Amino acid sequence: MADRLIRTVTLARPIEGAPTADDFAIVETPPRPLPEGGFRARVIFASVDPGTRSRLSAGASYAAPLKPGEAIDGFCIAQVTETQHAIFAVGDVLAMGGGWTEEIVSNGRGYIQRITDRRIPPSAWIGVLGIPGMTAWFGLQRVAQLRAGETVLVTSAAGPVGATASQIAKRSGAARVIGVAGGSAKCAWLTQACGFDAAIDYKAEPDLAAALRAAAPDGVDVLFDNVGNAMIDRALPMMRPRGRIVISGQVADYNSAAPPGLVNTRYFIANRLRMEGLVVFDDMKQFPEAQAQMADWIAAGDLIWREEAFTGLEALPQAFIGLFSGDAFGRRIVRLGADPEGWG
Amino acid sequence: MADRLIRTVTLARPIEGAPTADDFAIVETPPRPLPEGGFRARVIFASVDPGTRSRLSAGASYAAPLKPGEAIDGFCIAQVTETQHAIFAVGDVLAMGGGWTEEIVSNGRGYIQRITDRRIPPSAWIGVLGIPGMTAWFGLQRVAQLRAGETVLVTSAAGPVGATASQIAKRSGAARVIGVAGGSAKCAWLTQACGFDAAIDYKAEPDLAAALRAAAPDGVDVLFDNVGNAMIDRALPMMRPRGRIVISGQVADYNSAAPPGLVNTRYFIANRLRMEGLVVFDDMKQFPEAQAQMADWIAAGDLIWREEAFTGLEALPQAFIGLFSGDAFGRRIVRLGADPEGWG
Repeated sequence: MADRLIRTVTLARPIEGAPTADDFAIVETPPRPLPEGGFRARVIFASVDPGTRSRLSAGASYAAPLKPGEAIDGFCIAQVTETQHAIFAVGDVLAMGGGWTEEIVSNGRGYIQRITDRRIPPSAWIGVLGIPGMTAWFGLQRVAQLRAGETVLVTSAAGPVGATASQIAKRSGAARVIGVAGGSAKCAWLTQACGFDAAIDYKAEPDLAAALRAAAPDGVDVLFDNVGNAMIDRALPMMRPRGRIVISGQVADYNSAAPPGLVNTRYFIANRLRMEGLVVFDDMKQFPEAQAQMADWIAAGDLIWREEAFTGLEALPQAFIGLFSGDAFGRRIVRLGADPEGWG
Repeated sequence: MADRLIRTVTLARPIEGAPTADDFAIVETPPRPLPEGGFRARVIFASVDPGTRSRLSAGASYAAPLKPGEAIDGFCIAQVTETQHAIFAVGDVLAMGGGWTEEIVSNGRGYIQRITDRRIPPSAWIGVLGIPGMTAWFGLQRVAQLRAGETVLVTSAAGPVGATASQIAKRSGAARVIGVAGGSAKCAWLTQACGFDAAIDYKAEPDLAAALRAAAPDGVDVLFDNVGNAMIDRALPMMRPRGRIVISGQVADYNSAAPPGLVNTRYFIANRLRMEGLVVFDDMKQFPEAQAQMADWIAAGDLIWREEAFTGLEALPQAFIGLFSGDAFGRRIVRLGADPEGWG
């Protein structure tokens, strides 16, 4: 194996503002030795997630910031190629962390999930059944405690979290789900394919507040926000009594040294609002239950998603950078290797 | 009774910015007839509450805004003078809403509490055992779900809500309670009489953020805020994982058409924070249980408070206006009549 080199995307420098290609580097290193009881796996799909942005500059996040030279973290689908692990065998297909790299060497600890449900394409396990899908599920069920008959507003609605959230909300009894997204193609997909009752194109709408009021004339019980402060501030006056705001992501604010502020906080007392930040890793023990339900929906054709597929490790930085321009439409995944045999 | 006139403070005009004397009027009206099954009561103490401010201009609050000419609402202690009511008898002392007036005529509905515990001065029932005290109790117990061993930060700490909150927090097992108040006299009272572990004088402290960090080096689990956005924004970076922010009042923002914004919302995801607005009227059915516990503490000398007493109906506007200058020190009450016989 000594003549093999493994390519990995690393952080070149702490990122200020919007990420650019120069913020990333690709390094080649010899294969790492297998730790005792660990395993080696080839990466089939790597994911790009806007939440990763918060770890790429100094400052607060749910995890420590990355240092220059460290591999970018991210979930992936990988297949075991060598193993001393008690459970994971050669050929097993896993969803796990491990970063933007061609080959993972793991001691077997941390979040690693063996995928066995062959009804579903492997990439779904880093999408609708992975962190984005779990974020949608636990954001609605645990944080928002969605109840039947309620009205839900989802922002960044055509993203993998948002589009999944609407379908979960509808299947959980929400009376009305409204999405905000950029562009007519996304909005058409939301209403025609994802079950949204209304979709608002924030790029085309001259008065977003008026459009929101028209789409939710009786107000909003749950705001599932993936955008950031400006969006939440606009929605606060629309929140119904005892409304809940899930801060799922802040894609508009991650790149900003001076994001806009929330001004309309008087509505918190006026309408007894609750706002809570979500890190879905806290719910990991409950993932299998949610995934089993959602896999059944997928197999029945009742839960859909959209993927944007890129190919090759060198595509990772650009796929990630594009998440912040509003151009991404669906889950972005990057294929680094062939599908496992007998799947898909 | 036709030659008697009842004086009442009314709203002269919707208030913009800080309230002034010209925003209020005093009207004299003949006594109102008794509604069937209702009662008449003379007001002994009227209270002034900063939260009332939010109803005195157009816009959102937990209740509809007052119109010019309407009586200012406010809790009071009153004694029944005439009755057709099935329960309330002549001589009964009541804590109830009813406004800034010398005489209340009630149909018996709404929040009316008969006071029978003569261990405690009547005015306490619109203070430490009234809305401010209940706000402190239910803010900590229901909204913040305070747990033993936690660190609590209380703002506007020398006010009737804040000073009561610290004592409840300590008796509920909080490890450390820190207060922010304006002026050395208030800060001395907080640490010497109210059980605060530290008190920070925001008027004297050149670097409030540094002072807060020094007072709570391990961070804050519960922020009990009575001030508003600027204070919350300063505290957000100090919040510990799963910290809770109770929006109890926003005295610094009520008068502002353009309050400062909350910018540090990235900490909501980073530390899984929760923020919730409190309207204590929602907890009314549970008041008696909290009051019974707190009355026992008072009788044992374990729960103290400070009152600023004014006299006469015409003092009400000025006592209220002073709530927003930072000069108030303790619960402001206005005496409109003599104590009931055999009390106090």
